[in-house]
Amino acid sequence: MVEKRNPITVEDAIKRVMKYRKTGEIEYIDIKQANGRILASDIIADHDVPAFNRSPYDGYAIKSSDTSNASTDNPVVFRVVGHIGAGSVFQDTVKEKEAVRIMTGAAIPDGADTVIMLEDTETLDNDQVAVKKQMENLQNISLAGEDVKKNTVIVPKGKIINPGIVALLATFGYKNVPVSKKPVIGVIATGSELLEVDEELQDGKIRNSNSYMMIAQIERAGAIAKYFGQFSDQLDTCIEQMKSAMTEVDFLITTGGVSVGDFDLLPDIYKHFQANVLFNKIRMRPGSVTTVAELDGQLLFGLSGNPSACYVGFELFVKPVIDTFVGRNQVGMKKAKATLSVPFTKANPFDRFIRGHYELTGGKVEVSPSGKDKSNMVHSLAEANCFIHLPGGTNGYNKGETVEICLLENV
Amino acid sequence: MVEKRNPITVEDAIKRVMKYRKTGEIEYIDIKQANGRILASDIIADHDVPAFNRSPYDGYAIKSSDTSNASTDNPVVFRVVGHIGAGSVFQDTVKEKEAVRIMTGAAIPDGADTVIMLEDTETLDNDQVAVKKQMENLQNISLAGEDVKKNTVIVPKGKIINPGIVALLATFGYKNVPVSKKPVIGVIATGSELLEVDEELQDGKIRNSNSYMMIAQIERAGAIAKYFGQFSDQLDTCIEQMKSAMTEVDFLITTGGVSVGDFDLLPDIYKHFQANVLFNKIRMRPGSVTTVAELDGQLLFGLSGNPSACYVGFELFVKPVIDTFVGRNQVGMKKAKATLSVPFTKANPFDRFIRGHYELTGGKVEVSPSGKDKSNMVHSLAEANCFIHLPGGTNGYNKGETVEICLLENV
Repeated sequence: MVEKRNPITVEDAIKRVMKYRKTGEIEYIDIKQANGRILASDIIADHDVPAFNRSPYDGYAIKSSDTSNASTDNPVVFRVVGHIGAGSVFQDTVKEKEAVRIMTGAAIPDGADTVIMLEDTETLDNDQVAVKKQMENLQNISLAGEDVKKNTVIVPKGKIINPGIVALLATFGYKNVPVSKKPVIGVIATGSELLEVDEELQDGKIRNSNSYMMIAQIERAGAIAKYFGQFSDQLDTCIEQMKSAMTEVDFLITTGGVSVGDFDLLPDIYKHFQANVLFNKIRMRPGSVTTVAELDGQLLFGLSGNPSACYVGFELFVKPVIDTFVGRNQVGMKKAKATLSVPFTKANPFDRFIRGHYELTGGKVEVSPSGKDKSNMVHSLAEANCFIHLPGGTNGYNKGETVEICLLENV
Repeated sequence: MVEKRNPITVEDAIKRVMKYRKTGEIEYIDIKQANGRILASDIIADHDVPAFNRSPYDGYAIKSSDTSNASTDNPVVFRVVGHIGAGSVFQDTVKEKEAVRIMTGAAIPDGADTVIMLEDTETLDNDQVAVKKQMENLQNISLAGEDVKKNTVIVPKGKIINPGIVALLATFGYKNVPVSKKPVIGVIATGSELLEVDEELQDGKIRNSNSYMMIAQIERAGAIAKYFGQFSDQLDTCIEQMKSAMTEVDFLITTGGVSVGDFDLLPDIYKHFQANVLFNKIRMRPGSVTTVAELDGQLLFGLSGNPSACYVGFELFVKPVIDTFVGRNQVGMKKAKATLSVPFTKANPFDRFIRGHYELTGGKVEVSPSGKDKSNMVHSLAEANCFIHLPGGTNGYNKGETVEICLLENV
């Protein structure tokens, strides 16, 4: 009973999935936990930066008009009437021939309109300082609002919060930061050949690696993984397990069981649920049997049991849904061009996504496959930081040709 | 009392800091939490992969010698004696003209030495199948150990664990994963101009942004931040606060107070502790007053209160110590070459580290400064994903010239 399936393109598959995307909610977290999260509202400046006219140097705040004749030969003597560090405010007004010793970052006192640097002065006795240089109005003053004007959007929502953005959040008083709630993604493994990670090997069986890989991919993509363990071999039990899992998650991933093999349960489960199967065959390698279904608006991702196909299926179809849920402005993998450092001589009847490793070498982006490209080789996944995308319908690629890569890290 | 300081090079400064590096311990965590941590022991294969001779296809396991005369015109008829899915084992031995229906991933039964694909057969009545093709010994069989041999080092320690590595950990039975313990890094802010993040603005004051930025940088670098709040203005209280903080952390960062300004307390604190000041002046911009001291082998990082200088100081001097603590094989920022997309016309008497944003554009690495390069502009930090490093003693750089960049993300 080999079922006939209708293969569609990768693009079309992504489009069909994205029809059922959801948007998550905002939650507020402490600024100390904000790094790496997605900013859910624009950051708005609650004040000018600087908030006041500020000294960029250590020196003396004076009236520039008092220096109109100052020179090395003709120093002008000022009386030092105050001494303020950053954070302090001079309470008086600076008058003619008066100087306030001022530190970097401190507010310019009223009456003063310039700061003369320490090295352009000479300290005399009796709280007096000699100025040997002409100064201009507003010289050496960081003006209020010079960096940032109040009410400006400083950082637009949808960005991944990094340490620099954290600094801005702190500057503008965001003790609690609006971030996107992470979606919860369920993971269920199928396959009677699977042992759990802590089981001893048995004849004919392998340990379940896909589920843990998925959990890590889900976390890397900025979502929360919920692992439900392995499915029963029994259709009835399976159906119950899946039904229950769906109520606890935003999206559900199953691994394995989507082929047309005699022991593949997923097609029957979808049938039982009367789920809307968006596609069950894609013109791509690996992962051609990747299946996505929708039930009452909830996406059920049926990824292949083959580790490479499973990995690719996640990044191509699940990640964009996560990105949308958290409101990232980059949806799906970031793409770039790279120079192939090995040839791929075979023609590509289908879109191929080859696990690759790119390096920045001498100002150029170079990419090579990460390990032999055998779809059952978990091994080559460890070094992968991108996919090499060879579009379907193309001939082989030579070494040195430019290809598209899809970046795997979220930065 | 402007103190005379001896400037040293960035390289020399890093060397002096690294003399007091420490190595952390190993801890074991659940594989579900392993993503992003540093692998602390080599991953060793506890079995061959495949662990047994395995079928890469859906088909029939047979003896190749039975097909020596098979062709489309002369099909050879086999009796189907079993049917095994992945994870099942055929308990008998395959004899002449016997076939076992086999699924992808299942173990090759004893007696069989090849798998004929479904499409090269024809199913007849009475549990019989016709084979129309000659097969060779071991054709279509994934041999035990073909991917990975038992006892091979699969992934060397020191790597950041990614989803592919998690898959390998699961395959080889690592339910508990050896990872490097994260160092604890204390953060203390100094500066009487500083308000806390949730305080209303006051005349002459700014909110403390450096501490939160540091916390985010510490987390990005893979360590744990412990924030001790702001220092008192009083030397005595300061000394007590710092002494107590040192007992709770592996490394301690203070921000601000390291200049030669009249209100800068750190030099006096180092003196009080009789700490070994490794340097207090570096031939670099920003961050020339960055100070690092050592007390009984513990590093005290005195970063500048200027946000950009603080940021740069952390990445240059604190990050390598974290990388070493966790045993990463990449110590310090990863470097690369990039093409400048704007000119830097001024000469560089000192090493400059300009916050930059690099992009992969048409197969090339292009970099530009992220925002105007004013050292008091927090703003430009938000977009930075690298530093543009202009070495001291160089003239200006033109647009299109190649420069070194230091990458800020740990991937």
